[in-house]
Amino acid sequence: MKNDKVFVFDTTLRDGEQAPGATMGPEEKLEIAFALERLGVDIIEAGFPVSSPGDFASVQNVARHIKDSCVCGLARSIVKDIDAVIEAVKPAKHKRIHIFLATSSIHLQHKLRKSQDEIVAMAVESVKYARKRMDNIEFSPEDASRTEKSFLYRILEEVIRCGATTVNIPDTVGYSTPEEYGAVIAGICNNVPNIGKAVVSVHCHDDLGLGVANSLAGVAGGARQVECTINGIGERAGNASMEEIVMSLRTRQDFYHLSTNIKTKEFYRISRMVSKATGFIVPPNKAIVGANAFRHESGIHQDGVLKERRTYEIMDPEDVGVPSTEGLVLGKHSGRHAFKDRLKGLGIELPEVDLDKAFARFKDLADKKKEIYDEDLAAIVEDQGHMAHVAYSLADLISTSGTNIAPEVTVTVLYKGKKRSQRSTGDGPVDACYKAIEALTKLKIKLLDYGIKSVTQGKDALGEVTVKVAVEGETVIGRAASTDIIEASAKAYINAINKYVAQQKLRK
Amino acid sequence: MKNDKVFVFDTTLRDGEQAPGATMGPEEKLEIAFALERLGVDIIEAGFPVSSPGDFASVQNVARHIKDSCVCGLARSIVKDIDAVIEAVKPAKHKRIHIFLATSSIHLQHKLRKSQDEIVAMAVESVKYARKRMDNIEFSPEDASRTEKSFLYRILEEVIRCGATTVNIPDTVGYSTPEEYGAVIAGICNNVPNIGKAVVSVHCHDDLGLGVANSLAGVAGGARQVECTINGIGERAGNASMEEIVMSLRTRQDFYHLSTNIKTKEFYRISRMVSKATGFIVPPNKAIVGANAFRHESGIHQDGVLKERRTYEIMDPEDVGVPSTEGLVLGKHSGRHAFKDRLKGLGIELPEVDLDKAFARFKDLADKKKEIYDEDLAAIVEDQGHMAHVAYSLADLISTSGTNIAPEVTVTVLYKGKKRSQRSTGDGPVDACYKAIEALTKLKIKLLDYGIKSVTQGKDALGEVTVKVAVEGETVIGRAASTDIIEASAKAYINAINKYVAQQKLRK
Repeated sequence: MKNDKVFVFDTTLRDGEQAPGATMGPEEKLEIAFALERLGVDIIEAGFPVSSPGDFASVQNVARHIKDSCVCGLARSIVKDIDAVIEAVKPAKHKRIHIFLATSSIHLQHKLRKSQDEIVAMAVESVKYARKRMDNIEFSPEDASRTEKSFLYRILEEVIRCGATTVNIPDTVGYSTPEEYGAVIAGICNNVPNIGKAVVSVHCHDDLGLGVANSLAGVAGGARQVECTINGIGERAGNASMEEIVMSLRTRQDFYHLSTNIKTKEFYRISRMVSKATGFIVPPNKAIVGANAFRHESGIHQDGVLKERRTYEIMDPEDVGVPSTEGLVLGKHSGRHAFKDRLKGLGIELPEVDLDKAFARFKDLADKKKEIYDEDLAAIVEDQGHMAHVAYSLADLISTSGTNIAPEVTVTVLYKGKKRSQRSTGDGPVDACYKAIEALTKLKIKLLDYGIKSVTQGKDALGEVTVKVAVEGETVIGRAASTDIIEASAKAYINAINKYVAQQKLRK
Repeated sequence: MKNDKVFVFDTTLRDGEQAPGATMGPEEKLEIAFALERLGVDIIEAGFPVSSPGDFASVQNVARHIKDSCVCGLARSIVKDIDAVIEAVKPAKHKRIHIFLATSSIHLQHKLRKSQDEIVAMAVESVKYARKRMDNIEFSPEDASRTEKSFLYRILEEVIRCGATTVNIPDTVGYSTPEEYGAVIAGICNNVPNIGKAVVSVHCHDDLGLGVANSLAGVAGGARQVECTINGIGERAGNASMEEIVMSLRTRQDFYHLSTNIKTKEFYRISRMVSKATGFIVPPNKAIVGANAFRHESGIHQDGVLKERRTYEIMDPEDVGVPSTEGLVLGKHSGRHAFKDRLKGLGIELPEVDLDKAFARFKDLADKKKEIYDEDLAAIVEDQGHMAHVAYSLADLISTSGTNIAPEVTVTVLYKGKKRSQRSTGDGPVDACYKAIEALTKLKIKLLDYGIKSVTQGKDALGEVTVKVAVEGETVIGRAASTDIIEASAKAYINAINKYVAQQKLRK
């Protein structure tokens, strides 16, 4: 019986960072490395030291601080690359070198212009060279999935003989189907005579949307290391996503009979961290860590989940660290039950007859609006003579900013029927605005997260702002949209504060 | 030999719209329906008519205008639902009703509280009822992949006997592995006696990141319809993505031996359209349609692609309609070749010795900055005494806006050593700003697309703005980042204009 533990090799800091636009600074990289260590990643590929002085320093920095995970650096089959890795990872407690060399005919002919014999000689020489100074050596035949099988078996046997302890089989261009890729791995396990001396690893790309499925087919075929990235970032369509692979193995333990060392509750947090460091947004429909991954809008699904979670949920959101503020979202597909729950969250409990009326008006409004905000609900019930706890509302905002002047914002809020104004400056108009609002509410408010997206196209583009703030230590989320992005920012902040106030009233 | 044509059933307007926050208006839905028709989709599921008056009207609207694709509406196994669909799709040239009813034990026990016999009776009754008034009937046993096999075969046989022409097998909660799901479909094809009278359909969700792989396993197992959405939007982690399924079948025709009617060159355009209508951003690393899907940053990959595209590209970007302005991106992993190419695009050709110096400075800068903009390149070569064609630069900007006042912006640009200012108003500060810049440059400029994202966290959040504009009829893309989002917007616009000017100079 084969070992049932799959090693997780994260390459967010190397292959992930190679994504156009994803370049991270050294502090961000170290922060992510610490988070990967907490997550329980077995091997962290920290960079490609020879590629730039910054990358070298960054790998060295990670090597100095990470204790539990093995720190790895990438090298071509070239002495200067190998030297750079050995030097960069030297401070690490556990270290590995990852040497790669293309082996497919198309790469040999067009890129390297070398024969198969020359390639084997290069691979053998570089593994031997590295082996003199390090024990933990991974070798990757680049474009392995498009490499002639007999040649693939031959080169793997040779590098293992020279001391490679892990052999990684990249589907470099994301071309394989799960059936094919699973067969490649199984073929290697069955045909390379000394394969028992090395761990077989999978490394899949998502060009056809099959990165995760290929990785799983690979471990089913005998691989015991998966190379992947947080949020599936990486060159082109990205690498296979760690959170999807790990949660598939975990959720379908009954099928795969495999486990990892990953502490899955860290997924949500590290996903947000990587998104911020790279500027790559996590789309709402991203599996496991997307904002909608555990959200239900349709009435049928909401009803099902309220009756029995397992009708529509196969994972517990808490297992991947999704904060409990997430959940059922109001929209046109929502049912009466969810509507009532949300009103309760705003501190409003209506008699049944009023609830029916409010629900009908809500359905009308939902046909027109994408998402229903608490303000909209407040307006609905207020029109019926009920008061919602919309404590603060934005009465006026004047913002002045520019390239060579300090931003200045004057905010007027309506609170308990009275208007009060406050002028403030800041790092930018949004920051100035938030300072003014904080002063007006006299609450202790800390901005934890700020996100903006354009909702529509062209000149009348609506900006939708989402903020996460800690009000007196309690985390609340606010949202608002406007054609003026500063106004949207102010309204989102006030929306969050109102949620906090409503929660406080409910507790009394 | 089975038919090798796979029907494409799009449910962007129904299951896609069910995603929290994705609600679309009737005009947006019709626009998308037209785009789906152009794309060559066989069946368009336009909505769930009984769920709200707006949804009913929307399905009816699509039914009135779409001629080439079949228009479908969703119904529970309930008379009022079926009546609503029949009424809503009546104007369509080709029409279908899609009736669903849960069949898994967990749904029967917790949600419906009915026995298997009662479920079969309901299904039979509703298919018979619909069949009296329509020929084209699809039946879905909801949560089919978790349904007891013998019961699944039984209910499918019954509904086909009563006139169902398509039987769809949803993996409602996205729980299946490709092996399992392929086996479910093959099991149905082999065990339901009258299965030859119906088309078997797959409907997969992406909760474990396996939606596309499961769909492909299903067609390999004998299904001949795929249900999917553009960009993979949908409830929770979304549905299987149409562009990924179709491009997998096409790119791996040698493996699947199947084809579709889809005109793949429309993918990029419809992907952007759906993104705008729903507000769901397409992440850069999304397969097929993400901004990075065909971009290469690392020096090794860029070098390979410049030598021979197929070394790192398995699809031709033009086949999915990616505009030719996309391509190689400059960052710290870029090589000298790509750097030189980009300078050329700016109208700069340096002697080799200067190029070496500039490249070294570029590498230093790239270690510090996420992405290198044309302005940065211009600064590098200007410092060396070469002039880049950065025609316009932003010298000053003052913006005043607010809730109750018209936005007013004064922009000062530097052009050929002279400063000129312009004041303007608009729908919002960004619109006002763009009007001022247009007046200053005296160019005919049309904003085609505007996108903003927050790059970093907290108070000093950098906003990165990307604009697509037509300058004198030529499309160019501009980008810039700043802590002041209005400044970032202005700079991105100017960046685009400078690109246009540089292109004009090169042509002379």
